[in-house]
Amino acid sequence: MRSEATICALATHGTGAISVIRISGPDAIRIVEGLFHAATRGKKLRDQAPSTIHFGTIRHRGKIIDEVLVSLFKSPQSYTGEDAIEISCHGSIYIQHKILELLVESGAVPAKPGEFTQRAFLNGKMDLSQAEAVADLIAAESEGAHQVALQQLRGGFSNQLKHLRGRLLHFISMIELELDFSEEDVEFADRQQLTELVGEIDLLINELIRSFRLGNVLKNGVPVAIIGRPNVGKSTLLNALLNEERAIVSDIEGTTRDSIEDTVNLQGITFRFIDTAGIRETAEPIENLGIRRTYQKIGQASIVLLLAEAGDDPTLIVQSVEAIRKQIAHGPQQLVVVLNKSDQLSGKELRDTLAELTVLPNERVIALSAKKGNHMDSLKGLLLELVNAGNIRHQDVVISNIRHFNALRSASESLSRVSEGLASALPSDLLAQDIREALHYLGEITGEVTTDEILGNIFKNFCIGK
Amino acid sequence: MRSEATICALATHGTGAISVIRISGPDAIRIVEGLFHAATRGKKLRDQAPSTIHFGTIRHRGKIIDEVLVSLFKSPQSYTGEDAIEISCHGSIYIQHKILELLVESGAVPAKPGEFTQRAFLNGKMDLSQAEAVADLIAAESEGAHQVALQQLRGGFSNQLKHLRGRLLHFISMIELELDFSEEDVEFADRQQLTELVGEIDLLINELIRSFRLGNVLKNGVPVAIIGRPNVGKSTLLNALLNEERAIVSDIEGTTRDSIEDTVNLQGITFRFIDTAGIRETAEPIENLGIRRTYQKIGQASIVLLLAEAGDDPTLIVQSVEAIRKQIAHGPQQLVVVLNKSDQLSGKELRDTLAELTVLPNERVIALSAKKGNHMDSLKGLLLELVNAGNIRHQDVVISNIRHFNALRSASESLSRVSEGLASALPSDLLAQDIREALHYLGEITGEVTTDEILGNIFKNFCIGK
Repeated sequence: MRSEATICALATHGTGAISVIRISGPDAIRIVEGLFHAATRGKKLRDQAPSTIHFGTIRHRGKIIDEVLVSLFKSPQSYTGEDAIEISCHGSIYIQHKILELLVESGAVPAKPGEFTQRAFLNGKMDLSQAEAVADLIAAESEGAHQVALQQLRGGFSNQLKHLRGRLLHFISMIELELDFSEEDVEFADRQQLTELVGEIDLLINELIRSFRLGNVLKNGVPVAIIGRPNVGKSTLLNALLNEERAIVSDIEGTTRDSIEDTVNLQGITFRFIDTAGIRETAEPIENLGIRRTYQKIGQASIVLLLAEAGDDPTLIVQSVEAIRKQIAHGPQQLVVVLNKSDQLSGKELRDTLAELTVLPNERVIALSAKKGNHMDSLKGLLLELVNAGNIRHQDVVISNIRHFNALRSASESLSRVSEGLASALPSDLLAQDIREALHYLGEITGEVTTDEILGNIFKNFCIGK
Repeated sequence: MRSEATICALATHGTGAISVIRISGPDAIRIVEGLFHAATRGKKLRDQAPSTIHFGTIRHRGKIIDEVLVSLFKSPQSYTGEDAIEISCHGSIYIQHKILELLVESGAVPAKPGEFTQRAFLNGKMDLSQAEAVADLIAAESEGAHQVALQQLRGGFSNQLKHLRGRLLHFISMIELELDFSEEDVEFADRQQLTELVGEIDLLINELIRSFRLGNVLKNGVPVAIIGRPNVGKSTLLNALLNEERAIVSDIEGTTRDSIEDTVNLQGITFRFIDTAGIRETAEPIENLGIRRTYQKIGQASIVLLLAEAGDDPTLIVQSVEAIRKQIAHGPQQLVVVLNKSDQLSGKELRDTLAELTVLPNERVIALSAKKGNHMDSLKGLLLELVNAGNIRHQDVVISNIRHFNALRSASESLSRVSEGLASALPSDLLAQDIREALHYLGEITGEVTTDEILGNIFKNFCIGK
């Protein structure tokens, strides 16, 4: 499956102090040798030890394009498993462009998105779920998303899956042997052991399936909608959450965020505030909550913060909650009533209001002052509690990829049929069919079973140069 | 002058496939060793050969932050001349931030803008004009700007200046010796040889001073103003120049430009169209050219393109030109009359118009159709001719830095006084004073003479990580 073309791409972005250009493939060293003049006269890249760095110039028709460092990697000790070179040049647009142009003129082809990682997969440097983790790792902006991606990159659950799938493969070959001797009615595959193995695999699979909700939260963040009538303090509340974090984010120069979305990171989990521009501008009174746009926002959210003033009539708050509940019916949204401007009430008044709101059976109620910053920590703690963040530290194996989730569910269904078949002493040929199906879905996750379509879908979303 | 602190910074920009973090200073290796776990068990960075690459993980309290490549450089074989390390990690904001944070916690300090290059200068890895060229090289977007910066980085004129200054230093020590023996009336410094040396230095200096206009054009581009009445085709003309180039620029993915300024690159020279947003919107009729805003634009330009229609009354065109000439008086602007929509005239009509415009003594006149793309090459050729681009290939030594320009002019003045002094047999002590002044200005260029203020001004404009 190894490709014959040598690919090249910019591996860094924009114009920093330096840029890195990657080349990988059978001709990588030859192509770069034609352009690179080592500062040490007569030094030939092909004769150098792998994993070494060489100073010199990139030249074109005798003219120097740049002074560069060339990092030399030799197959199989490289990211892709092929011969590979990284050229570290000055970060100017002109130089980047010119060196890439020269590489292409010398026979390299521009890499497609994710093609370096795809080659790493095809050359057995990583399995498919690890390859997918590379893109997730680069995109990770929070500690949670980073941890999930890194665990997956390090082989987290896929090593376990591969091991169990290997054992299942052994059983299918035994059962297929039985089919060859079907007239003799022998059992090569121990049904008791097979039942135990299926149980073991099913246990892991279901643990992984259950972890998806958390994995998804860690990877993609938690969508939160803040609703409430104008001037109740939606914008103040959001800013109070945002500002603290912004100060942390910008404390080391050169690490600014590209994103201008309103997201808040709490203990490594990203909370995304849906359409906050809209929320900030909204002039819908709480009585008109039936308006479609507000319900759309609620529909996208996992958590809905209904903001009211602590001094509002509790009866009206309860009515608002009931109106929302009616609309979302049995939707998955978790609803929190936030009583803002709590500092404007006396302790007794606040206690009375809270007492009246205890009629709400499922909603958490929290009182705070966004403007003064009072009790903001309670809100943060509640947000973390609602996404079950307490479990993150203790749970080692988490999946976050919808493709894995779907494959695991299909594998689980096949395995259920295998279990039933085993219980009802199903004939070997029918049993084998269900096991093969389970093997197929498990193999799709790690890439032991794959198609061009699956690979195409995975790598098209990578960035160029990875 | 070598600093004791170990500095760190991101050397790449934003979130590409990879990011590179640089660390330099006496503790660089020790600090990274505390965070880096080589994949090869027991491998210690300090024991590895210089200019080698090592795969492993960055960890914090046992938790893996990323899988990275560490490039090891040992003093003096590094960019800064100090022990230095480059960590090549996955290009996520979270990882960049986290690794920098860990480095700072371990004792590194965030680098100031240009601090790596400043250290390279202080450690004698490059002279001051070479250090300045690094920033120019990164900023270079055109071939011309790139060539000037690279030539300077490679030591272009500064090696020559340093050599001649060295010889002048020899003479001043001889003359100072004469002062010690002033009562004996001896001459240690051969006046004939000194006169020849001063002549040689003055020749080079004046060549460099003359090259500044071209160097400045190459580095900063040529400001061009397009003026003319509404609907005469200003925007069409600019787009015709821009479009061809845009197609070239975007032909390799991943090398997009950040700049959205209207600049056109012709044979490596950048032409910058001043305030083109304004030009596109302008509704000023040509008769109202007296309007201040138009004259401001003209005042900023090196080249003014006065756009008219080929079918316009030649007398009115001549009047417009004279009105502009009167305003700019003896300004340095070069004025070109561009007759647009030339395709709407017959050959004879066009010849007649051109004949009538020969009354203009200093203006070049060119006829074209921006819409149809006819004769656009003539305009491009003329633009290049006006900036004397033909000379670029033949002229090896070009300065582009206003600081160098000013120092060279001061040095030239001092040397003129030295020449006069030699001619008039000025006493040694007065002669020595002028020579010392020339030495001072020459030394400022290469950094043999410098102050914290000069260094501060130079490096504050660098990017972080360089």
